[in-house]
Amino acid sequence: MDQKLQAYIDKLNKLNFKGMYENDFFLTWEKTNDELEAVFTVADALRYMREQNISTKIFESGLGISLFRDNSTRTRFSFASACNMLGLEVQDLDEGKSQVAHGETVRETANMISFMADVIGIRDDMYIGKGNAYMHEVSQSVREGYRDGVLEQIPTLVNLQCDIDHPTQCMADTLHLIHEFGGLENLKGKKVAMTWAYSPSYGKPLSVPQGVIGLMTRFGMDVVLAHPEGYEVMPEVEEVAKKNAAASGGSFRRTNSMADAFKDADIVYPKSWAPFAAMEKRTNLYGEGDAEGIKALEKELLAQNAEHKDWCCTEELMKMTKDGKALYLHCLPADINDVSCKDGEVEASVFDRYRTPLYKEASYKPYVIAAMMFLAKVKDPQQVLKALEERKTARWIG
Amino acid sequence: MDQKLQAYIDKLNKLNFKGMYENDFFLTWEKTNDELEAVFTVADALRYMREQNISTKIFESGLGISLFRDNSTRTRFSFASACNMLGLEVQDLDEGKSQVAHGETVRETANMISFMADVIGIRDDMYIGKGNAYMHEVSQSVREGYRDGVLEQIPTLVNLQCDIDHPTQCMADTLHLIHEFGGLENLKGKKVAMTWAYSPSYGKPLSVPQGVIGLMTRFGMDVVLAHPEGYEVMPEVEEVAKKNAAASGGSFRRTNSMADAFKDADIVYPKSWAPFAAMEKRTNLYGEGDAEGIKALEKELLAQNAEHKDWCCTEELMKMTKDGKALYLHCLPADINDVSCKDGEVEASVFDRYRTPLYKEASYKPYVIAAMMFLAKVKDPQQVLKALEERKTARWIG
Amino acid sequence: MDQKLQAYIDKLNKLNFKGMYENDFFLTWEKTNDELEAVFTVADALRYMREQNISTKIFESGLGISLFRDNSTRTRFSFASACNMLGLEVQDLDEGKSQVAHGETVRETANMISFMADVIGIRDDMYIGKGNAYMHEVSQSVREGYRDGVLEQIPTLVNLQCDIDHPTQCMADTLHLIHEFGGLENLKGKKVAMTWAYSPSYGKPLSVPQGVIGLMTRFGMDVVLAHPEGYEVMPEVEEVAKKNAAASGGSFRRTNSMADAFKDADIVYPKSWAPFAAMEKRTNLYGEGDAEGIKALEKELLAQNAEHKDWCCTEELMKMTKDGKALYLHCLPADINDVSCKDGEVEASVFDRYRTPLYKEASYKPYVIAAMMFLAKVKDPQQVLKALEERKTARWIG
Repeated sequence: MDQKLQAYIDKLNKLNFKGMYENDFFLTWEKTNDELEAVFTVADALRYMREQNISTKIFESGLGISLFRDNSTRTRFSFASACNMLGLEVQDLDEGKSQVAHGETVRETANMISFMADVIGIRDDMYIGKGNAYMHEVSQSVREGYRDGVLEQIPTLVNLQCDIDHPTQCMADTLHLIHEFGGLENLKGKKVAMTWAYSPSYGKPLSVPQGVIGLMTRFGMDVVLAHPEGYEVMPEVEEVAKKNAAASGGSFRRTNSMADAFKDADIVYPKSWAPFAAMEKRTNLYGEGDAEGIKALEKELLAQNAEHKDWCCTEELMKMTKDGKALYLHCLPADINDVSCKDGEVEASVFDRYRTPLYKEASYKPYVIAAMMFLAKVKDPQQVLKALEERKTARWIG
Repeated sequence: MDQKLQAYIDKLNKLNFKGMYENDFFLTWEKTNDELEAVFTVADALRYMREQNISTKIFESGLGISLFRDNSTRTRFSFASACNMLGLEVQDLDEGKSQVAHGETVRETANMISFMADVIGIRDDMYIGKGNAYMHEVSQSVREGYRDGVLEQIPTLVNLQCDIDHPTQCMADTLHLIHEFGGLENLKGKKVAMTWAYSPSYGKPLSVPQGVIGLMTRFGMDVVLAHPEGYEVMPEVEEVAKKNAAASGGSFRRTNSMADAFKDADIVYPKSWAPFAAMEKRTNLYGEGDAEGIKALEKELLAQNAEHKDWCCTEELMKMTKDGKALYLHCLPADINDVSCKDGEVEASVFDRYRTPLYKEASYKPYVIAAMMFLAKVKDPQQVLKALEERKTARWIG
Repeated sequence: MDQKLQAYIDKLNKLNFKGMYENDFFLTWEKTNDELEAVFTVADALRYMREQNISTKIFESGLGISLFRDNSTRTRFSFASACNMLGLEVQDLDEGKSQVAHGETVRETANMISFMADVIGIRDDMYIGKGNAYMHEVSQSVREGYRDGVLEQIPTLVNLQCDIDHPTQCMADTLHLIHEFGGLENLKGKKVAMTWAYSPSYGKPLSVPQGVIGLMTRFGMDVVLAHPEGYEVMPEVEEVAKKNAAASGGSFRRTNSMADAFKDADIVYPKSWAPFAAMEKRTNLYGEGDAEGIKALEKELLAQNAEHKDWCCTEELMKMTKDGKALYLHCLPADINDVSCKDGEVEASVFDRYRTPLYKEASYKPYVIAAMMFLAKVKDPQQVLKALEERKTARWIG
């Protein structure tokens, strides 16, 4: 047995993640610490096996259904990559092409697309109170379909971004931290600044800041959420962050000063988002079909944003961080000053300095998604990892 | 040898379906009874093997081309599932994306997309006199391509819905009946009501009612086609139904009363469609590019539809069926009263009661399509089923 | 060992193509003669193995990314076929669906889509000075990503058509010639007429005529480029053609007479294209966002085209060729008189007579693309071909 792979298996042996089998992945705070650590461990193991040219296919056929209610490049490719790694063929449910838009019920569609589906990945982040609820509806529908003999297998869900959380992103961010800081245990006591930043566009989802404060408070970190007044996130998620921090021996606090957050930070995550209250209002306006109201709200939000152009990740601010070299995180694409826009979230020289680590951060996402699937579909992951190594099928005859 | 799989093989041994090898599947009435039964049997065998986690891949690489001239969710996913089960990768010929729309001839395109194609699935149901003819053109083109050394293999066609028949749907419907009534032989003497029903949309294809009367008359059933005056289907298909009924010891008749059709029915299939004559007229108007004429025709058809809102599958009508519990069929999605529209094809309480059987009905489609492909691509299906069982490749290492 | 396969391996043993390993394929004139011959040989070997039902999969999982900046049927399907043959799953980067259009940098996107990418195929032929440059940018980006540990493998590029060359097309054209004339050595001394032809559309890419004169001058052929005055191609490529001809013992010249080019030609390739200078102008107008200027240019170009309706591949012209039966080539689709347009590139009777060879010409493209990938991804192609034959995995259990 390869020693490195054995070490991953040994780690898994110490964790209890039985609850993940045949289960969905919606929100990180619905998972235990052991379960999250199992995801990190399996993600690393899968990446290691790929590096060693060992096939990680656990499916010989089967479909991975992707359902994106918003445009996406990186998440789409990450999902496709994860499916491919495990042997599933991706089939997109593109609502433009399908009859979903024409009034089919969720329950019906969910079953109709799932006859050969082992995994369903959904991105639905636009409307507050809708995305996560929709995912649960899909999950419940296909579980009923399985129970009733309509489906031959249970398609498990992976939340590829909802209105509340963006678990595959935040887990990839954290796996990046684990590698940068040399282990999950080393995150304890590190200060993370999750801060709002100015962007000329508006209405960016809340799921990243919410996901970050909901996840990074799990590991004993000191998490600071910074934003201008009026840019509050969902209060329920702040409650989650507080409870997590208390339980993990870390801390969580909110501030209206970017400098305060950056001060001595080990990690900074400056990123634009829309105020929760405004997004809730927008969701209602859409529900009412109030086009005029939406237009007025957009105008108002852009004006509000424009008052906070000073919320930018500058070289000056970076100097205030721990030794002047906090690790800069972003889910990409970032709004870069004088590159993608005049005024944005970050100065070009800061972004450029962190380009390689940023790409590495993103590179964990396919493996995190694959690990979530692996743990949902495989009853005895340690045994299967071992079997894959013994099978020694080459991924590639180079 | 697994006994259940052996039973499927024994059944196939009694049937003559040599004609299906390297052949297309256009219309059910072009196939012998033995050939149809072979499809049902292979579909059941493939489903059984999937349940037993035995791979049914007969292709190690190769493409399944799908060509949809109309939006589709369920047929698209069914075709993709069938291809995946057998080892083919789906490649969509999306006419929006391709140059087909810009005047390429059918013969040329058919060859250009088929260099690695083992199967081509086409849905072209919109224009009377066109869809089925187009499929034949494609088939002939690729057969010539094979003969001339352009293609290394013969891509066989599966009709995923044309202007005349919807064989994968109606075969799935019938396989559902076989399972519900405990065998093909038990369909004999059962009364089927294939009836028109009101829908606020118009212009729904005729292929389902035509496919149903063309297929279900094969098995000694008493098939009643009911619709308001003016909603006639293609006369040629009625002729087929009559001949089938005479040959099978069943019956076929037409009525203008929904109640008459429902009375003592064992199976009801209430579904909207457009009058054949109107669809023919529309096809000609499109051919002439007469936009005004099309608009006028749509208006006229909607008005005509609106006169028949009483053609709805109500609880009251259901009570008239055999023991008040005829099996309700639909190809989905249905127009459900007060759910997908105000007045529609079926009352919500009726639909809800049959939801699980309806989903099961749909669940046979991927297997029916896979069986059609299997019988077209495999010379000795019994031997290959046996070989697949002996190969015992797991579909999924769970 | 199969003798025919052994002969391909023997041929490869005589060639030096080490430089292709882990390398991209941009322009044919950046490759040595040995390298081009290796592509032809591997293409033939792969096709032969497919005919023998021997799997040519060298990837057990992995993605082939396709990026089309222009509509495409045949190239899209050829790329998909090539990927499928080698075991890669195609994932399209459709800019409509993705965030690329919203200002992401090339470097970032290239990495974000490449975590599991083994090959990237790009078609970007619309703007002079842009397509080839873009491909180099992508290549450099992913190589940096690999070097920096972002990517686990080097995704190699295949140029599926740029502003300068269309290597997969012209290599397929040439492989067709090799088979028609019985060997690469038999092309020596053959006269090729690469001539402009009238089309009612305008702005067709220059990459085919440029690719043809840049490639066919490599093999000792007498290449004549014919076009009306004002329809010049890129001067740099004419220089390449001249140098190639000098080195190979062939010739290259330009004429403004179609008849001159057709006279005694062994091969004719009549095809419309836009003047290089006009395309350069158009690129600049697009860059400046000058919609009025573009409209005016289009009008001007159509008027200019219309003056040359006599540039058509007629029966009369064909009679002037060698024995009246030069081989007619086209990349398809062609503008055929009274079929796809009133006046076009070729008379219907000429086109019809060459239909089967034209389809065969096209049929080489998937194999040429697969060979380019094979040579880029496999360190010892001879050994791997042998191993594939010994593995003897059936592509298809028929």
